[in-house]
Amino acid sequence: MSQLLWQKPGVQVDARIQQFLAGEDVILDREFFLFDIDASRAHAQGLQQIGILDADELAGLERELTALAEDFKAGRFVLDEQYEDGHSAIEVRLVERLGDAGKKIHTGRSRNDQILVATRLWLKDRLARLAAVCRESAQVALARAGVEGAMPLPGYTHLQRAVVSSLGMWWAAWAEGFIDDAQRAQQTLGWVDANPLGSAAGYGVNLPLAREHTTSALGFGRMQVSAAYAQLSRGKFEMAAIEALSSALLDLRRLAWDLSLFTSAEFGFVALPSQYTTGSSIMPNKRNPDVIELMRASYSAAAAARTEIEQLLSLPSGYHRDLQFSKGAIFHAFGRGLGALELLPDLLRNLEWKTEAMRAALDPSMYATDLAVDLARQGLPFREAYRQAADPARWAQGDPEASLAARTSPGSAADLRLAELQQRLDALQ
Amino acid sequence: MSQLLWQKPGVQVDARIQQFLAGEDVILDREFFLFDIDASRAHAQGLQQIGILDADELAGLERELTALAEDFKAGRFVLDEQYEDGHSAIEVRLVERLGDAGKKIHTGRSRNDQILVATRLWLKDRLARLAAVCRESAQVALARAGVEGAMPLPGYTHLQRAVVSSLGMWWAAWAEGFIDDAQRAQQTLGWVDANPLGSAAGYGVNLPLAREHTTSALGFGRMQVSAAYAQLSRGKFEMAAIEALSSALLDLRRLAWDLSLFTSAEFGFVALPSQYTTGSSIMPNKRNPDVIELMRASYSAAAAARTEIEQLLSLPSGYHRDLQFSKGAIFHAFGRGLGALELLPDLLRNLEWKTEAMRAALDPSMYATDLAVDLARQGLPFREAYRQAADPARWAQGDPEASLAARTSPGSAADLRLAELQQRLDALQ
Amino acid sequence: MSQLLWQKPGVQVDARIQQFLAGEDVILDREFFLFDIDASRAHAQGLQQIGILDADELAGLERELTALAEDFKAGRFVLDEQYEDGHSAIEVRLVERLGDAGKKIHTGRSRNDQILVATRLWLKDRLARLAAVCRESAQVALARAGVEGAMPLPGYTHLQRAVVSSLGMWWAAWAEGFIDDAQRAQQTLGWVDANPLGSAAGYGVNLPLAREHTTSALGFGRMQVSAAYAQLSRGKFEMAAIEALSSALLDLRRLAWDLSLFTSAEFGFVALPSQYTTGSSIMPNKRNPDVIELMRASYSAAAAARTEIEQLLSLPSGYHRDLQFSKGAIFHAFGRGLGALELLPDLLRNLEWKTEAMRAALDPSMYATDLAVDLARQGLPFREAYRQAADPARWAQGDPEASLAARTSPGSAADLRLAELQQRLDALQ
Amino acid sequence: MSQLLWQKPGVQVDARIQQFLAGEDVILDREFFLFDIDASRAHAQGLQQIGILDADELAGLERELTALAEDFKAGRFVLDEQYEDGHSAIEVRLVERLGDAGKKIHTGRSRNDQILVATRLWLKDRLARLAAVCRESAQVALARAGVEGAMPLPGYTHLQRAVVSSLGMWWAAWAEGFIDDAQRAQQTLGWVDANPLGSAAGYGVNLPLAREHTTSALGFGRMQVSAAYAQLSRGKFEMAAIEALSSALLDLRRLAWDLSLFTSAEFGFVALPSQYTTGSSIMPNKRNPDVIELMRASYSAAAAARTEIEQLLSLPSGYHRDLQFSKGAIFHAFGRGLGALELLPDLLRNLEWKTEAMRAALDPSMYATDLAVDLARQGLPFREAYRQAADPARWAQGDPEASLAARTSPGSAADLRLAELQQRLDALQ
Repeated sequence: MSQLLWQKPGVQVDARIQQFLAGEDVILDREFFLFDIDASRAHAQGLQQIGILDADELAGLERELTALAEDFKAGRFVLDEQYEDGHSAIEVRLVERLGDAGKKIHTGRSRNDQILVATRLWLKDRLARLAAVCRESAQVALARAGVEGAMPLPGYTHLQRAVVSSLGMWWAAWAEGFIDDAQRAQQTLGWVDANPLGSAAGYGVNLPLAREHTTSALGFGRMQVSAAYAQLSRGKFEMAAIEALSSALLDLRRLAWDLSLFTSAEFGFVALPSQYTTGSSIMPNKRNPDVIELMRASYSAAAAARTEIEQLLSLPSGYHRDLQFSKGAIFHAFGRGLGALELLPDLLRNLEWKTEAMRAALDPSMYATDLAVDLARQGLPFREAYRQAADPARWAQGDPEASLAARTSPGSAADLRLAELQQRLDALQ
Repeated sequence: MSQLLWQKPGVQVDARIQQFLAGEDVILDREFFLFDIDASRAHAQGLQQIGILDADELAGLERELTALAEDFKAGRFVLDEQYEDGHSAIEVRLVERLGDAGKKIHTGRSRNDQILVATRLWLKDRLARLAAVCRESAQVALARAGVEGAMPLPGYTHLQRAVVSSLGMWWAAWAEGFIDDAQRAQQTLGWVDANPLGSAAGYGVNLPLAREHTTSALGFGRMQVSAAYAQLSRGKFEMAAIEALSSALLDLRRLAWDLSLFTSAEFGFVALPSQYTTGSSIMPNKRNPDVIELMRASYSAAAAARTEIEQLLSLPSGYHRDLQFSKGAIFHAFGRGLGALELLPDLLRNLEWKTEAMRAALDPSMYATDLAVDLARQGLPFREAYRQAADPARWAQGDPEASLAARTSPGSAADLRLAELQQRLDALQ
Repeated sequence: MSQLLWQKPGVQVDARIQQFLAGEDVILDREFFLFDIDASRAHAQGLQQIGILDADELAGLERELTALAEDFKAGRFVLDEQYEDGHSAIEVRLVERLGDAGKKIHTGRSRNDQILVATRLWLKDRLARLAAVCRESAQVALARAGVEGAMPLPGYTHLQRAVVSSLGMWWAAWAEGFIDDAQRAQQTLGWVDANPLGSAAGYGVNLPLAREHTTSALGFGRMQVSAAYAQLSRGKFEMAAIEALSSALLDLRRLAWDLSLFTSAEFGFVALPSQYTTGSSIMPNKRNPDVIELMRASYSAAAAARTEIEQLLSLPSGYHRDLQFSKGAIFHAFGRGLGALELLPDLLRNLEWKTEAMRAALDPSMYATDLAVDLARQGLPFREAYRQAADPARWAQGDPEASLAARTSPGSAADLRLAELQQRLDALQ
Repeated sequence: MSQLLWQKPGVQVDARIQQFLAGEDVILDREFFLFDIDASRAHAQGLQQIGILDADELAGLERELTALAEDFKAGRFVLDEQYEDGHSAIEVRLVERLGDAGKKIHTGRSRNDQILVATRLWLKDRLARLAAVCRESAQVALARAGVEGAMPLPGYTHLQRAVVSSLGMWWAAWAEGFIDDAQRAQQTLGWVDANPLGSAAGYGVNLPLAREHTTSALGFGRMQVSAAYAQLSRGKFEMAAIEALSSALLDLRRLAWDLSLFTSAEFGFVALPSQYTTGSSIMPNKRNPDVIELMRASYSAAAAARTEIEQLLSLPSGYHRDLQFSKGAIFHAFGRGLGALELLPDLLRNLEWKTEAMRAALDPSMYATDLAVDLARQGLPFREAYRQAADPARWAQGDPEASLAARTSPGSAADLRLAELQQRLDALQ
């Protein structure tokens, strides 16, 4: 490792301990690196505004930060174990290239607010992607509900056949679900959209830092005012972001469960294009819906990440090194979670329904509720109507289209209100 | 147990199994009962609007529902194991009192949407209380920051003495934290504020239910459109509510940690009024800050409740009995969580600072960062300034008030921006 | 509340705070009460051995403790909010009945070791029940594997039809699973079987307490030696017990998933006796397998309980009031978990297989793996054999019994090794 | 990616989907690779025993497997994205080198039992390391208890000063804790020590596989009999291993908390050698005990990993692709957990006590419990003695050594019973 920023004479360094301390930190910092560079640029601009840097120094720093970002993207600069972390790497590079101007970049900031601001920018980026993929999934669902909504599909409760449902009801459910998820992602994005840069190590500094400038230069919605709260929000904001992600992944898990059942031979309602399946190393006959299963399983990464951070937050106020372990967690959650969600819109577009099998699974008992309600409409008290309709002798194969056409309660088959959902979705754009 | 609504001839009932099925369900339903009655009233009004009930029947139902609510509140009606659940209890009572009109109350609804709507109303109530207590806590913190903000307090990172901080910085941190928590509670309240009543068992019914009426009569912000999504949102919305609660409880946990340290003899910064302490059964000398410890521990109930629901949600769409177990979880989380939070404003008001001890804990090393920044302001590149200021020979006991007065970075001691925080808080009222 | 053991002059008591502190503690203590009485008896005997009590005092205490236990069991003594907790209740009662002898019972002990020992005895009791129900479930599975093992059943991977399996393979899997679970419950019981009584508040006392006596009188396997570790093991041992329970509940969850699918109309492999099903309030046609779903869901209570305790254990050593919240958690986990498991043996005994449907679900592709292996046995390299057998043209409806008879790999259909499993099970008795 | 083992004509492959499916699987398989090779060798030996391979083929396979292991260790063979996974890589390499013999290696096995057996061997290795480091930590603690046990240390409950304790009591607590943890690790190792190889895809094969041979060749304690249970144990066994790890990490977390407090200026009981500390990028004065904080935080990785697997296990029996995500989880847990634990013995050896500060923190109230018990020994009923000793007028600075010498309850300062603990520890070797 290159020299440690904080190295002092007489302090021993033990390689094994240093490795434990460093962990995979610098590797993880690759995810943040461009955001860290952006924040460094804004910080430098602020330092120039308050007279710590002169115009030339700022120009040099801006040029070298841009060059570093380019080098990093092109693979010419590799962030690896020779640096203690990404923050140190930036400073080392600037000192190498610019001398004293580089040694000034850290004036008035700490790695504490540096990691906070980089994380915040990263989270905003990922929450925006999350919102976008939820909106897109909802849009696909709404579109298919419009096109094929009238097709009958068995409706289940307790995995037992219950009443006639429709593709319209199925698609509209996911549409509204992902609209909610998109809204939540956007609310969460707004909630975390506060600039921590300028809080230093949680106690501010004896300089009138230009926090309004960095707030607007970095595109934040507001300043995170309290320097001490900036530290307290570490982990708390990450958890909120993961929770917004988890909301969408919970819906994905349940959707994947439906598809897992529907692609079984026993249900047989859905055919998956072959690119969504894989084979077995021993059973030559298998075509397995692995994509669906990994989508279902992706929630677990978000759950794990949330747990990982949650376990760190039983601490007094102020920075503690424990918080370092919150980094890998968000990469794991969003890496796997967005990876799964971003395959969803195409999967939804490509699902093929096997309508014969769907119809074949509609049995006479599934019209009994219609009958009970019909009797109630004719004046029989419902509880009596229910008793009469419970008699299997009164069940008969019905007409699924007629059943659906009569299902007039708002939000049900005959009154799906897709336009209302579309309107809510459009309002989120 | 009184007769089961769904009992059919020839179906055996085994007492041990029934007990497992029932669990503590009917007892838990006490929490929901008044909301269930409210929703039943709105449902009855809707049934009258679509001709299922006549005006007299509706009047009878409304009268008896009001009477039932009164009896329940007065303890004259006890919801216990003689009923399968609260929903059945309402129907049984209405049938008892009104005969056929009672037997009509369940027309077009299921216990599935009945529990959904009762839960939704309950969650809204608790989220409103959560927002209120967060706002109140923030207000107390802002007020004390204003009054005693200038008082020096040691600032720690890694539990090691770092720089001079102030009571103003400490209070402002919690103020901004609880403002965020209040905002989140309110956002979450808005997010779940959707009426599921009228979705029946997840597939709607063959009746044009007056869902707009029930939506406005029950004070919901919008209709939850899709009948199938109403089911899918079970658990998902509960988790979001618990997560909003957890956000505040995480802050409470960290605040309690501070107080736990500050009330130790070693720190000695805070005195707690004696009503916040308890004694030991064996050690006559003890005055223990149990209230603070139980506040800190209250997060665990919310975490447990979230886990309990999360574990239930790996399911295909449609209702499954598994979801029943989400009920107790929210009572546990909000019962204990709000119980702790609602003691917080008074605790914050009653904290007594021991300012001598606070000052005594400020040692010369805590001015080294000021020195480094001062040198940087004078033109020395910060990294050089840092090296010079790292020399203990240059450390000297400083003037804490002067250090704080120079801490001009926005959000720090000399520029706390309490008015900005107050403005954000006021906007949440 | 009756007088607090630790009440001192000049200490204010605030009713709202007291209620928060007490919580439902005294109600929860009902679960522990008889164990607490047992431990109090052993403690009294120990005190007599070291001269703190004389023989008459001991006789009085033993008599009154027995009477208290009888009164409690008969409902003549009610443990409720008039006491701070169960521990106080015992002391108050003994003082009431015996005067000074009662005032001596707490010599050398703290409520800290009192709750530790009661919890430990309770956990041992529940772990023994857990082991027993796992053994019984394994025994039922082994018995049915022996009787009906030859019956073909489709074998799935990824919920896709894979190869022919058998009831023997299905039952043997659960048998071995519950044998492992029983073994783990017994190992865990042994691991926690250590007497904490005599550790006082975690630092021992200036009395040569007769810890060997209490260890043997209470039936513990060993003394928990270190007084300070007795405190540190609080929560740690509870978690281990819940984890052993969770292991069995995870298996139950997967078993319930199988049955949930198998009782669907689409699979149709299993019929449940009607006492295991319930109806719907709105759909007259439904018979839902609620018992199976609640069994599946019971894992969530154990998961919640584990989370609840886990969240409490980020603490320095020594007792903290946070730990109080571990109590309700174990009751929740074992209450619901054992409640579900103890219905399992009968459910397993009562399952009815629908063998026609099972056979009907065997399709020609399910013999392709047999074919590939047959080709390999004849000398074709397996990877080649696999390619040939992947050609659907080579698939044909096979004879399931023949397929099973040829499945000679140990642990598979033709070589189930039930006797080996029985032997392992017998060794656990 | 090289050709997929299961690739069939007409099946489309989509690069983006393949990447999602593969994830980081093949990179993760590096951890397992040597174990996978070992298991492949044993499997090949078994195939020769049942006539699938001749002696030459076996010799070739054994030679090439050994060469592959050597190449892998030396970095000459790189397991990367050109392979679908480690299992495929082995087969591809053997086919490349040996032709038909290579194509035979997969006879009678599936990647399902291949990953099971590799995971099992890996877990056994890590549990053995866990047990070893717990034993070593316990040994250091016992040794220091023996040497410096008599030194007084303040004893706390609720972080409030309670009674005089000693270094002996502190060390003995951790000794007994890590003995328990070592025992649990060993029990768990025994519990998972069952060979799944030969279970194929969960249904066995039509070959009399030599499972007894592979069981003994790989050093397993027993065969995991049921082929279907082998699948069901996936995740279940991983969780048990993580739970055993977590038990030790919980103790480490609490130990680290003690040290975090003790190294604060306010307590000041412990000095850490400088290699265990780091500096700050902005505060020149800081020496932070980061190692201790990361030790404390390491529990979070185990908690996350457990959550990640737990979330996957709500599935019917049989293999599902979801289970793939259990791999990374165990690496994360044991990587970080053992990383932290394996630094512990040296840290414990290197702790330096600041005995002056420890003594200075003993105040007169801390002798009140001694006084109460002394009065009780003289015949005063304890509850009376307690009341008298609660009077601060009766408190006086005592002699800590005398207090400790009188603390004769077994497991306390005057009767630590280190020999008993040593005996239990020795029995675990």
